[in-house]
Amino acid sequence: MAKKRSPSSGKLTYKATGVDISANDRMVEKITQAVRRTYDPRVISQDGAFAGLMRLDFSERLLRRRYRDPVLVGSADGVGSKLLVGLEHGRLGGLGIDLVAMSVNDVLTTGAEPLFFLDYIACHRLEPDGIAEIVSGVSDGCRMAGCALLGGETAEMPALYAPRHFDLAGFCVGVVERRRLIDGRRVEPGDVVLGLASNGLHSNGFSLVREAISRLPKGLTRHPPKKGRRNWPVDLGEPLADALLRPTRIYVRPILRLLAGYRRKQVVRAMAHVTGGGLAGNVPRVIPRDCDVYVSRRAWSVPPIFRLIQRLGVGEEEMYRVFNMGIGFVLIVRPAFVQSICRRLDKLGETVYRLGTVRRGSGRLLWR
Amino acid sequence: MAKKRSPSSGKLTYKATGVDISANDRMVEKITQAVRRTYDPRVISQDGAFAGLMRLDFSERLLRRRYRDPVLVGSADGVGSKLLVGLEHGRLGGLGIDLVAMSVNDVLTTGAEPLFFLDYIACHRLEPDGIAEIVSGVSDGCRMAGCALLGGETAEMPALYAPRHFDLAGFCVGVVERRRLIDGRRVEPGDVVLGLASNGLHSNGFSLVREAISRLPKGLTRHPPKKGRRNWPVDLGEPLADALLRPTRIYVRPILRLLAGYRRKQVVRAMAHVTGGGLAGNVPRVIPRDCDVYVSRRAWSVPPIFRLIQRLGVGEEEMYRVFNMGIGFVLIVRPAFVQSICRRLDKLGETVYRLGTVRRGSGRLLWR
Repeated sequence: MAKKRSPSSGKLTYKATGVDISANDRMVEKITQAVRRTYDPRVISQDGAFAGLMRLDFSERLLRRRYRDPVLVGSADGVGSKLLVGLEHGRLGGLGIDLVAMSVNDVLTTGAEPLFFLDYIACHRLEPDGIAEIVSGVSDGCRMAGCALLGGETAEMPALYAPRHFDLAGFCVGVVERRRLIDGRRVEPGDVVLGLASNGLHSNGFSLVREAISRLPKGLTRHPPKKGRRNWPVDLGEPLADALLRPTRIYVRPILRLLAGYRRKQVVRAMAHVTGGGLAGNVPRVIPRDCDVYVSRRAWSVPPIFRLIQRLGVGEEEMYRVFNMGIGFVLIVRPAFVQSICRRLDKLGETVYRLGTVRRGSGRLLWR
Repeated sequence: MAKKRSPSSGKLTYKATGVDISANDRMVEKITQAVRRTYDPRVISQDGAFAGLMRLDFSERLLRRRYRDPVLVGSADGVGSKLLVGLEHGRLGGLGIDLVAMSVNDVLTTGAEPLFFLDYIACHRLEPDGIAEIVSGVSDGCRMAGCALLGGETAEMPALYAPRHFDLAGFCVGVVERRRLIDGRRVEPGDVVLGLASNGLHSNGFSLVREAISRLPKGLTRHPPKKGRRNWPVDLGEPLADALLRPTRIYVRPILRLLAGYRRKQVVRAMAHVTGGGLAGNVPRVIPRDCDVYVSRRAWSVPPIFRLIQRLGVGEEEMYRVFNMGIGFVLIVRPAFVQSICRRLDKLGETVYRLGTVRRGSGRLLWR
């Protein structure tokens, strides 16, 4: 955290205080291409502009849009301590996808189509390669979510961030027709709770993950272990870093496709993104106060990475309070459409579980 | 940066790793009111929702909006090392205003009305009072800019931020009718460059500011000095902390009022927010490549805080390359309307300077 002093006691310059403006220029060059490939014709491109621009309505054939009563939907998020794990393993690209996923999945819970994304990267020193790797990941995430990377800010703060450290924040804006807004108010007893498989830990609970992983027996750094060595507490079936750092799943395309298939019927009554707080912390956010959600833990099998962390000393209840445990996104749907919804989501490449049902209650998730 | 270990070697909990969920609840309570007072009837309020919602069109009388061809405008920014100065002086509220100002003024350069703002606050530990002070400032800034604080994220990352340290990112979305978008393309030789007074340093160049201030003679901590002591290099006329931390000026209301007064004429052809890089770094971002902007440094007087920093060892050219030097926002306007624009801005409480003119050239700002 030491701040470098100007070598002479003479004139101060901005560069001597540690902010390298030409490194910034090199980086901008590197990331321009990653940004451009997220654009669609609605983006109004302007070099050097102070802000990013995107048309909401559009008349050309491929992207025809004409919102009658548009509701804008905004969400901000970060990736938390997962970025320290990414740093420790020298893998930054996936963190960009995580960053996008955290806010686009939030926006998606309202039924909105993500329009654009902006990022904020703050670091000790601009390392053009590292920043380019992150932004390239952000660009990948934006393409997965079908949104434009409309802009971003990169800040160098050597007095705030330790060498090599950085932080990420992401912002997503989407839009939904007001009459198609999904807000959970229509959830009623008898509705069915469906869960979509997560990619693993996603981007929550990494303070606890790092603490748990630090308890792994010394020398047990490779996974899968060499033949004959069987001392891993749980068989992950893949290297630990892969399991820890697999990017958060982005549910935008399958969910929007699903919703588009039921234009005239509100078959999906609520959706929840399972982040910090797990199922019990997130599903109740979108149900009415006079309903409870009953979920069976036997409805799906918990992926090995969660069992490993539990084995390293985290209690069962704490696991379910902190992690998604294998379910990354939840839909509450009308019972008559469960089969057709499951079939469609399956065709769209999602793994769907029937987790439970809605009953009269007081706004809680109860395990049964 | 040391991470606290669980006191026992027994069960790990999320709280033992340093993330205090009940502190989060207390904080949410504190900030709810600050958030609500930024709402207007276009905000669709939903407790616990995953994302913030705002209607774009609105039919009620007071806030009637009906965009024909809306362009959404987005910007992300932080406050940089100014937050370290705020921390050192125990003044966090103004930083919230700075955070809003940095992105709403960017959005404003396109002629857009800011709609909503989201914040990201990352810190070592959630200190509910500190976070509430920041969010209250963000709320003040949003009210100044007429936008809703639609949401935000607070992250606790003890392994990334040193004790008491935190970082801020902000994100603003605005909207402008496409035919009223201001993008600088119509700037032409003969146009006049107007500058609006800044509030001082605003939120840029603070790495250099901190370096310069650290050179103040020891013991010279009070300003104004006691009677008889005259050893301050420049008379600020106010305490140093006041001069350093005065929040960034938000130009939204006067500029939108001005633009609304010329509905049928595009009298304002370009606008620039003077941030890092100063006038020479920012004004060229919004002019065509075949024009230069000529600006006279004698057109306005540089506020004392800049003269103090220069006296502490920063070269004159470097000062103009890094700081706004007293001009926070620039308008390039049609010459026939200079007088009426200046009169209107003056009535709206702004201090306006006629800085120079546009001539044929190659996209630069030249001092004359």
